[in-house]
Amino acid sequence: MSPLFTSLLRRRRHHHHHRFLSTHSQPSIEYPLTHPIYTIWASNTSLGKTLVSAGLSTSFLSSSHRKFLYLKPLQTGFPNDSDSRFVYSKFSQFFTQNRPEFSVFASNHVLKSSVLAKDAVLSGGFEVEREKNVDLGLYKESRLIGTEKNRPFFASNCVLKSSVSAKDAVLRGGFEVERENNVNLGLFKESRLLGTEENRPLFASNCVLESSVLAKDAVLRGGVEVERDEIVNLGLYEESRLQGTENWEMRGFSKLVCKTMYGWKEALSPHLVAERENARVEDGELLGMLKGCLGIESESEKGEVLCVIETAGGVASPGPSGSLQCDLYRPFRFPAILVGDGRLGGISGTISAYESLKLRGYDVVAVVLEDHGLVNEGPLSSYLRRRVPVLVLPPVPTEVSNNLMEWFQEALSTFHSLEEIMQSAFLDRTSRLRNMPRKAHDIFWWPFTQHNLVPEENVTVIDSRCGENFAVHKVVNNNVDSITQQFDACASWWTQGPDATLQIELARDVGYATARYGHVMFPENVYEPALECAELLLEGVGKGWASRVYFSDNGSTAIEIALKMALRKFLFDHKIVSDDLVAVNAESRVDLKVLALRGSYHGDTLGAMEAQAPSPYTGFYQQPWYKGRGHFLDPPTVAMCDGVWKLSLPQEIETQNPSVEDLTFSLRENIFKESRHTSNLADIYQLHIRQALQLIMDSSGSTRTGALIIEPGKTFDMHHFLFVIQGAGGMEMVDPLFQRVLVKECRNKKIPVIFDEVFTGFWRLGAESATEFIRCKPDIACFAKLMTGGIVPLAVTLASEAVFEAFVGDSKLQALLHGHSYTAHAVGCTAAVKSIKWFKDSKTNHNLISEAMLLRELWDSDLVRQISLLPAVHRMVVLGTLCAVELRAEGSNAGYASLYARSLLQKLREDGIYMRPLGNVIYLMCGPCTSPESCSNLLNKVYRRLGEL
Amino acid sequence: MSPLFTSLLRRRRHHHHHRFLSTHSQPSIEYPLTHPIYTIWASNTSLGKTLVSAGLSTSFLSSSHRKFLYLKPLQTGFPNDSDSRFVYSKFSQFFTQNRPEFSVFASNHVLKSSVLAKDAVLSGGFEVEREKNVDLGLYKESRLIGTEKNRPFFASNCVLKSSVSAKDAVLRGGFEVERENNVNLGLFKESRLLGTEENRPLFASNCVLESSVLAKDAVLRGGVEVERDEIVNLGLYEESRLQGTENWEMRGFSKLVCKTMYGWKEALSPHLVAERENARVEDGELLGMLKGCLGIESESEKGEVLCVIETAGGVASPGPSGSLQCDLYRPFRFPAILVGDGRLGGISGTISAYESLKLRGYDVVAVVLEDHGLVNEGPLSSYLRRRVPVLVLPPVPTEVSNNLMEWFQEALSTFHSLEEIMQSAFLDRTSRLRNMPRKAHDIFWWPFTQHNLVPEENVTVIDSRCGENFAVHKVVNNNVDSITQQFDACASWWTQGPDATLQIELARDVGYATARYGHVMFPENVYEPALECAELLLEGVGKGWASRVYFSDNGSTAIEIALKMALRKFLFDHKIVSDDLVAVNAESRVDLKVLALRGSYHGDTLGAMEAQAPSPYTGFYQQPWYKGRGHFLDPPTVAMCDGVWKLSLPQEIETQNPSVEDLTFSLRENIFKESRHTSNLADIYQLHIRQALQLIMDSSGSTRTGALIIEPGKTFDMHHFLFVIQGAGGMEMVDPLFQRVLVKECRNKKIPVIFDEVFTGFWRLGAESATEFIRCKPDIACFAKLMTGGIVPLAVTLASEAVFEAFVGDSKLQALLHGHSYTAHAVGCTAAVKSIKWFKDSKTNHNLISEAMLLRELWDSDLVRQISLLPAVHRMVVLGTLCAVELRAEGSNAGYASLYARSLLQKLREDGIYMRPLGNVIYLMCGPCTSPESCSNLLNKVYRRLGEL
Repeated sequence: MSPLFTSLLRRRRHHHHHRFLSTHSQPSIEYPLTHPIYTIWASNTSLGKTLVSAGLSTSFLSSSHRKFLYLKPLQTGFPNDSDSRFVYSKFSQFFTQNRPEFSVFASNHVLKSSVLAKDAVLSGGFEVEREKNVDLGLYKESRLIGTEKNRPFFASNCVLKSSVSAKDAVLRGGFEVERENNVNLGLFKESRLLGTEENRPLFASNCVLESSVLAKDAVLRGGVEVERDEIVNLGLYEESRLQGTENWEMRGFSKLVCKTMYGWKEALSPHLVAERENARVEDGELLGMLKGCLGIESESEKGEVLCVIETAGGVASPGPSGSLQCDLYRPFRFPAILVGDGRLGGISGTISAYESLKLRGYDVVAVVLEDHGLVNEGPLSSYLRRRVPVLVLPPVPTEVSNNLMEWFQEALSTFHSLEEIMQSAFLDRTSRLRNMPRKAHDIFWWPFTQHNLVPEENVTVIDSRCGENFAVHKVVNNNVDSITQQFDACASWWTQGPDATLQIELARDVGYATARYGHVMFPENVYEPALECAELLLEGVGKGWASRVYFSDNGSTAIEIALKMALRKFLFDHKIVSDDLVAVNAESRVDLKVLALRGSYHGDTLGAMEAQAPSPYTGFYQQPWYKGRGHFLDPPTVAMCDGVWKLSLPQEIETQNPSVEDLTFSLRENIFKESRHTSNLADIYQLHIRQALQLIMDSSGSTRTGALIIEPGKTFDMHHFLFVIQGAGGMEMVDPLFQRVLVKECRNKKIPVIFDEVFTGFWRLGAESATEFIRCKPDIACFAKLMTGGIVPLAVTLASEAVFEAFVGDSKLQALLHGHSYTAHAVGCTAAVKSIKWFKDSKTNHNLISEAMLLRELWDSDLVRQISLLPAVHRMVVLGTLCAVELRAEGSNAGYASLYARSLLQKLREDGIYMRPLGNVIYLMCGPCTSPESCSNLLNKVYRRLGEL
Repeated sequence: MSPLFTSLLRRRRHHHHHRFLSTHSQPSIEYPLTHPIYTIWASNTSLGKTLVSAGLSTSFLSSSHRKFLYLKPLQTGFPNDSDSRFVYSKFSQFFTQNRPEFSVFASNHVLKSSVLAKDAVLSGGFEVEREKNVDLGLYKESRLIGTEKNRPFFASNCVLKSSVSAKDAVLRGGFEVERENNVNLGLFKESRLLGTEENRPLFASNCVLESSVLAKDAVLRGGVEVERDEIVNLGLYEESRLQGTENWEMRGFSKLVCKTMYGWKEALSPHLVAERENARVEDGELLGMLKGCLGIESESEKGEVLCVIETAGGVASPGPSGSLQCDLYRPFRFPAILVGDGRLGGISGTISAYESLKLRGYDVVAVVLEDHGLVNEGPLSSYLRRRVPVLVLPPVPTEVSNNLMEWFQEALSTFHSLEEIMQSAFLDRTSRLRNMPRKAHDIFWWPFTQHNLVPEENVTVIDSRCGENFAVHKVVNNNVDSITQQFDACASWWTQGPDATLQIELARDVGYATARYGHVMFPENVYEPALECAELLLEGVGKGWASRVYFSDNGSTAIEIALKMALRKFLFDHKIVSDDLVAVNAESRVDLKVLALRGSYHGDTLGAMEAQAPSPYTGFYQQPWYKGRGHFLDPPTVAMCDGVWKLSLPQEIETQNPSVEDLTFSLRENIFKESRHTSNLADIYQLHIRQALQLIMDSSGSTRTGALIIEPGKTFDMHHFLFVIQGAGGMEMVDPLFQRVLVKECRNKKIPVIFDEVFTGFWRLGAESATEFIRCKPDIACFAKLMTGGIVPLAVTLASEAVFEAFVGDSKLQALLHGHSYTAHAVGCTAAVKSIKWFKDSKTNHNLISEAMLLRELWDSDLVRQISLLPAVHRMVVLGTLCAVELRAEGSNAGYASLYARSLLQKLREDGIYMRPLGNVIYLMCGPCTSPESCSNLLNKVYRRLGEL
């Protein structure tokens, strides 16, 4: 056998296309919903994002006990340009002039930079710049008296390594100690200088922090100097105590915290400077840093907090890795403020930027733009249908000498409005999130759910999805709201496949299809997405046998159609009906049944149900019309037990063949080996199946077996809720050899063969079509679920030309009279076209072993074996994107295992994995593009939790 | 009865939101595919759209027999700025310097302008400007010798009214005559002046055209002067014969045709200048003019043609009416060239502009941008995954004195590449369009279609949809490809509702939902779109009775779920099962049937089929498992015959009540009057239904009637393909009184009532829910089709709390075990939320009579009556968005009527109406927002064609 299932080493390829957020590097996204966090975007550079941020700080910090956190993740042109310093200094100036009532502790902190930027800070290069920027006084301790406006100013400085936690230690009281040791602070208290403009005192503090041990070590090791192509710690820090008339010691002061995360020297786009200054930052690292800046700050805070994150350039400007910023920050999905363009042509850019944000799933809470006399807010409001407020800022003075204080004063009411909008949108969001479980509980009727068994507090609120992960709303102890990340390990009913990149591509394509087609009538018509989808299907999953594509909406309808096709084909092949359907009378009717495997599941509409074995799920109280029109065989199955794949034969075969040997496989690939086709077991299967078919014929009278329906490569009964209902999940893989022989025998008897690939199709089991596993072709096959990449419902039934011809004739009555309004809808076909191509292109799917058109092994083999050896584990099936674990039941008490599966999954949800219990089976399902690193990460968590049992 | 169905006068409201392209004003879109037509877009102003256009002209006009058509629909800053003049003059200059081989006839034509702009042209204001622009010589006849570069130049001029056709007459040979009469033309031949730069002769012609009679009349009437708030004819025209070394007379010369459609004086955005200069242009007028400019030009041309249309400002800059240009030009959906931004921050703007175009369904064929040394093409190529080529133009010299000739020469190879890309994309598109019918014929398996009866040439190629209209590809006589518009009068299987504005809004929302959620698991979870959709449904179509929402994928699955709900509820209410489902044994089983009306249709899955009366469509050859588990009653029906609504009773009732009177209604609203509830006929219906139910009970043995299923307000059998198959369509409205009495009687017997509103729901019949028509509520109701605005499949089954409670208990077995993977998918729910809100908001749906929550009468009552009186018409049903006409069959020969229905529909397709035949019934279906003007337009065409029969 060719490299099927051979676990290949991960090869590094040169990929042409940048993919943002490769899953393994992304930190687990988590942030508190205790206070508003907004991202400030703009439709272009230089539209005033920083002015808006500074303006918000002046608006928000107008009373005590408040904290305004300003984050600038990416700063180019540093240190000459520093938006965080701008906010810091403009706020300080504004405060000094306008806020007599209370005190604010303001700081500005630059965490990391390129070596070049650092050099600029350390060297004299910046000195020169400083001369032009004396009122900012960033660099070097320097008491500057007699500056512009004749006010004294102490410039603080801190050029050294400092981690965030070191700084926090300072703020928490360690600072007090430092302060005592700091000679300059004597100045602080003595220097209350009256007589300044507006007659209010100004205090400036100056503080030199020690570096943290970690940062110091890095310096001592010389590592920083050597690795010049990296981003290095900078830890530039400055702060000032801005005191009003109130008593500083008596009341909690407010805080302005400004932070620049990364600085580069050249004033170009981050992707360019990162390259030119050899100082890249990977997306995952950046997000981790951002998360840190958010989390640590908010932890130790009381009172009201407002946080804004200012992006660099326009919404789709690349970050340092080349990822577009709107993609880069998407995992957080913070609500957005869009700074628009008030200039000529600015309406267009603003609308397009808004659309780019929407196309990434962002909520834009307000648009704000500078007045250029063109009333751009008019058309913008109209376009936004007044759902998003558009605020207008007064024209910004352009003279370099203007310190903007009058402008900030003039704009203050607008900033107040903006702040109000932001606060109220935040409150709306959190209160809605909090109320959703109750509302859902009151008005939803969930499928397959006994509502009595789902208390309100068990309802999961899904705020969004990014690739394979949910963002989930939680209210944890102390009544604290937060958003946390959970890997969607049930692939949302096995539909999901896209990573974050594909999801955004699909969003754009789906938007395009909606705009270009909406939905258009299919019969007798043709349009591009339907045609291209059909072509791809026939070249792909239908290759070598299928020639016709019949569209419908879901797996169940695809099966109903397949059954209608198969039964008609059978009637024709066996001459039960004449060519002229109208003329045939009722007497020739026979009772048609299907042949299927026990435990099969094909959908919940009546026709699909009829092809399934009876169960409580098909019972009289579920569907009083169900009869069960099938013969159901027990199949031999395979699963991994204690590190070895074991074959279990059904009772009947075992009894008749007591001497069958070789019932274990050391490697999974051996199960699929072609050599088994000529084995002794193949003969045994053949004989068994022939006997079974004979038995059916003998006992049936007028009944005929009109179709075979199987799931090729069928892995286990997770499909079927029967077992869940009974508290125990079956979990095993049907022996592919058995399926192959079954198909062959039915072919011999001219029984049309249907493959139900609704679950198995499109890489779910590691190959595009599961026919790979049993190495034979059907007459009819059904696909759905992952076909659209998991975006919208769409299903197809593929058929061979011979099947199609049973419906061709002169009469419309002979045609297949089954259809749904949205048959071949353009949106679904477009999503399918994109997904089918994406998954099978090695440029976009890095898991592809392109020679074999198979996925590489996603689940670490050693770890899988380790898990199978755990005492709590009975057996496992690992194949393609699926890793299922059956827990050991205590004796026959599957219910017990099912109970502890539930508590296990609860713990795993806390670990960030969203699983659904299936009795005593738990499973992980990833997408075709999910990195093996992510899979291992998941598997490790499962291993740890299973070990605790 | 309240204002139900009262035909209200159209009231003019003040609408807050601008809606582009109100349907009635839009011209029928049509254009040839004989040559490429591209729109040049840009991500911002001043990025070089005009340079690209001019560059393309230099590239394309490099051999004989070619024509380059440049159109500038909107020019502000005119006449000082004129992009068409720029193209005209730069090309002329370039030709003079670089094209020795052949000759070109170049012209520039400004058709219309604001009065202010015209005044500027006519007055001295422009004179001054002219002094600065002597080499252009636009205004006034003036022989300018010795200008810059020392070349003689004849400036042509034409300041007068001239229609396009007058100009064409000139070009076709009328010109020759004119030329003879034109004294200046003597100069033309004599003035072959050698010795110019590069030693090639230059000929400039000068031509004063006469105004057309129409234009002259307008001038004479003084009308133009009076209507100063309008756009006026300008007809500024200049041309020059650029002769190379080749013999002008011997060979066909090439042509450069430049046209500005509308000019405004101020150099601001069109929406502003249109307002300020009181010179608006409605979208429909603009599109009509554009269509004219395209069509007329190409008609008389031979040889290769390339046409570019240059937009104004950025992609989403507003046009003169306020519509965004990307929305405004959408009906044509010409492929796009996007001029991107090579500057700092330009990546973002370019990507966002690209996305705005995609979100409107445009195909972007290439991106081209000026090199600013930032390698912006790198990230752009990466983002576009190399599917869209990104071309780079050399930096444009910024000195005013530079005549750009060297730049054009340097950029020529890039323009050649761009032209090649445009040519090959055009050829790909047309050849794909041509091949689509054959491919579709080969690989599709259309539902409800006898493939033998659909020859390849009957396959309709739908290139796109814009609101209610298809853009259809046609190959007409002489093998000429074109795109034409057809109104989707079958609403694509009754799913469609959006106008062009809603379609674009849905595209954005659907893109947003995909980016935010993709699809996420529903059971035990909650997420915003599902919750909001459920809330809207319960406040809307379920108001007053429903409390639970069960999601599925289509009408058929919604019905299967409804049946499961109803039958369970029946079993519980009638104590046939105990509370504990597990314990009940099979003996208590009964044979459950449904009560339904004959001719009902509820879907094609087996369960839904079982609730329908037997027919060839449910026959053994279609679905061998169908049994027909229903009792089917014949209903009384109503239809308009010869201008009067007539009631037809079923045989049985008629026989028993020979004396029933009052079987006609002068007004449709009388059919729905509440007073009928206490009429004699109500008693007759009641008696009849009671007898029928008694009969069923008596004859059934163990059979029980477990549910009633009806379509409230059921209009006619277009649902059902049975009749189509048989060649005759039934078409009548079930008497709502009968349905009401039926519901009441079933209620009395505790038979759960299901309303199938899959077709009738969401305004299809003029009210959001068709329960309005029968004035009573169901226990269960199904919705689908129009719910998502016709974008993607989604269905719901609404239920009362009493129904839900039959499934609540301690056991999972008691739950409703039916589901589909995409249950409550976020994309569908989002589309539904938008559509449900849109249709019921009078700000967005101008058809709404908001007090009554009904649609105003869409089909002109007089015209409807006229049609019903035509000899070819048997009867009609007109209600809400539906207007159905049953053709008179010759005796019982419905097949004959069906045949001429087909030929009628063929003619109507040529009239631009896409209808599907339903036997001898033809119907028009519009959307809830379609303007009555559009409906009348359609109805008039139908009336004319029916009159011809």
